[in-house]
Amino acid sequence: MESRVASVRGKKLSELGEKKVIEEVIARYVAKPSWDEYLEVPDDARDVLPGGPRILFSIDGYSLEKILLPWRTLRDAGWCAVVGAISDHIAKGGVPRDLLVSLGMPSTTSVENLIEIFEGIRDATTEYRLRLLGGDLNESRSPWIDVAVLSYTSAKKPPRRCCGKVGDEVIATGVYGAMGYVVIHGIEESARVNWVIEATKKPRVYVETAIAISLYYRAIHASMDVSDGLGYTLIEMSRAMSRGIELVEEPEYYRELDGVCKDLECLWKYILNGGEEYGVVLVVDQRYTSALLDYLHKLGIPAKLIGRVVDKEPHIYLREKNIERYVKFWDQFRGWSATTKVMEG
Amino acid sequence: MESRVASVRGKKLSELGEKKVIEEVIARYVAKPSWDEYLEVPDDARDVLPGGPRILFSIDGYSLEKILLPWRTLRDAGWCAVVGAISDHIAKGGVPRDLLVSLGMPSTTSVENLIEIFEGIRDATTEYRLRLLGGDLNESRSPWIDVAVLSYTSAKKPPRRCCGKVGDEVIATGVYGAMGYVVIHGIEESARVNWVIEATKKPRVYVETAIAISLYYRAIHASMDVSDGLGYTLIEMSRAMSRGIELVEEPEYYRELDGVCKDLECLWKYILNGGEEYGVVLVVDQRYTSALLDYLHKLGIPAKLIGRVVDKEPHIYLREKNIERYVKFWDQFRGWSATTKVMEG
Repeated sequence: MESRVASVRGKKLSELGEKKVIEEVIARYVAKPSWDEYLEVPDDARDVLPGGPRILFSIDGYSLEKILLPWRTLRDAGWCAVVGAISDHIAKGGVPRDLLVSLGMPSTTSVENLIEIFEGIRDATTEYRLRLLGGDLNESRSPWIDVAVLSYTSAKKPPRRCCGKVGDEVIATGVYGAMGYVVIHGIEESARVNWVIEATKKPRVYVETAIAISLYYRAIHASMDVSDGLGYTLIEMSRAMSRGIELVEEPEYYRELDGVCKDLECLWKYILNGGEEYGVVLVVDQRYTSALLDYLHKLGIPAKLIGRVVDKEPHIYLREKNIERYVKFWDQFRGWSATTKVMEG
Repeated sequence: MESRVASVRGKKLSELGEKKVIEEVIARYVAKPSWDEYLEVPDDARDVLPGGPRILFSIDGYSLEKILLPWRTLRDAGWCAVVGAISDHIAKGGVPRDLLVSLGMPSTTSVENLIEIFEGIRDATTEYRLRLLGGDLNESRSPWIDVAVLSYTSAKKPPRRCCGKVGDEVIATGVYGAMGYVVIHGIEESARVNWVIEATKKPRVYVETAIAISLYYRAIHASMDVSDGLGYTLIEMSRAMSRGIELVEEPEYYRELDGVCKDLECLWKYILNGGEEYGVVLVVDQRYTSALLDYLHKLGIPAKLIGRVVDKEPHIYLREKNIERYVKFWDQFRGWSATTKVMEG
């Protein structure tokens, strides 16, 4: 293996050619079939036996340059692509297991850069006990990565974004404020702030959240992951259930913000803005909130009761004031804008 | 619905914004959950119950410009992406059912062009009884499309590329020679040949082949789809089993070639070169060949016995002569080259 890797040093994809890139580079990162599976590289599909009664299925793509904050390496980008893709499953109670990756790369890409991406993918699959089952490799002027994921759940009814009721309580898992710092201060300034870099370089997920969700699915009326900022997730869920969400307490946040902010409104601005925190917002029947929080804490997951569903217009409120104007939203085709504008069109 | 479509006329993705493109355009093409499923747009994952004991899982991507032969519209491109993606499953005995599509598009793309692609996707999902379950939308300087597919099979052991034995017989499904014409004569000349355009504009697959394969899986020692030309598939399978393949009779081919070719070698050149024919090559225990052929014919699938596995060096032979030099191979990163060169490195 090592000698093969050495032989590609300094080479471009066009020099090695598609077939050798797949057989000699990518195949090393692909999991072998288990005893009850048969297909493997170079077969064009993989066979799996379902890991639970209900399958969840998703695809999540990125232009590679969009993942690359200046302090992220290509290896971090590989990690981020996997983490972003499995986050959607966790929020729906699916324990992610099987992954496929499709990459588009210019022919002039160095093989070492491709290896770096796959090292990052392997970091994440190792950390979260996933299997990379294969994928596809394509030539493209601008590089892209798509990750397709299968997860499995025992939940008879995986929670949607909608469907919370007045009186339900809102739990947020995860730690907030670091990507909010990037949104508010910009990339250049954030690049000089160590705790922000540390917190955003390789975002993490809490896979065990899926187990808690699948166990408590009857009590969870809505669930959505936080990939475009906590504020966006809360607004989206509030619209989906046509009810307001009153914030009652901050979720876990980076304590460095206590030195940045003098008041609560300032703190919430950092907490609500962001992206790629990959926590989960759960709208829960209040009779089960403390049991669910207790279960999440036993799993080692940062989780707090942050709000409740109120019989008001669908906005997010702090001390009864609509604070949606704090929240900015990233639109892939239009850049940053106020979330209210995005929501109301 | 119609009024919504009318309102996007002439608009670009950046004018409509990501959220509205998904909610008002793409969502119209996404299948609703069935009675025993719960998640739907805008949930980030879909839940499905397995449609058979064994799941097959794949992802297949394209730079959009690579699909666009001059005589293909964007609607054809949408069709082609789906057909190419499900072909891999059919060859392994999986009946494809569930699809996710991830697209990368420049912000300047017109919404109507995006609609055209989804119309083509719908053409294919309708024709082949598939469900588009959702997907992802991304901004990218050069456009891409990735299709992730789930299929289901009752085959205990889906056939691999390898594992044929001396004496086994080789069946090819599908009709050949039209993309061979494009490879040999080039795109400009082919654009003036009606039968070539007709045959390559919207390649078709025979989904029922998957049923035959899953029923006869014990007798099928190897199977691979034809996506990079019949010659390439035969060479690849021959290498994988370390045996030769002696060609005994042509597969179904476009009869217009009888007017192009004077001899058998010429005919085989057109048949072996190509791509996107999406037939399947099956290496079969000879005791079952005629039963399997009979079954395929009853399903209305063009299928012929074209060769047999021989105890020779792993090449393809016509009248005992190695004819691999006839076969050209498309490498995404290097363009066209002789297959032997690709295989031997």
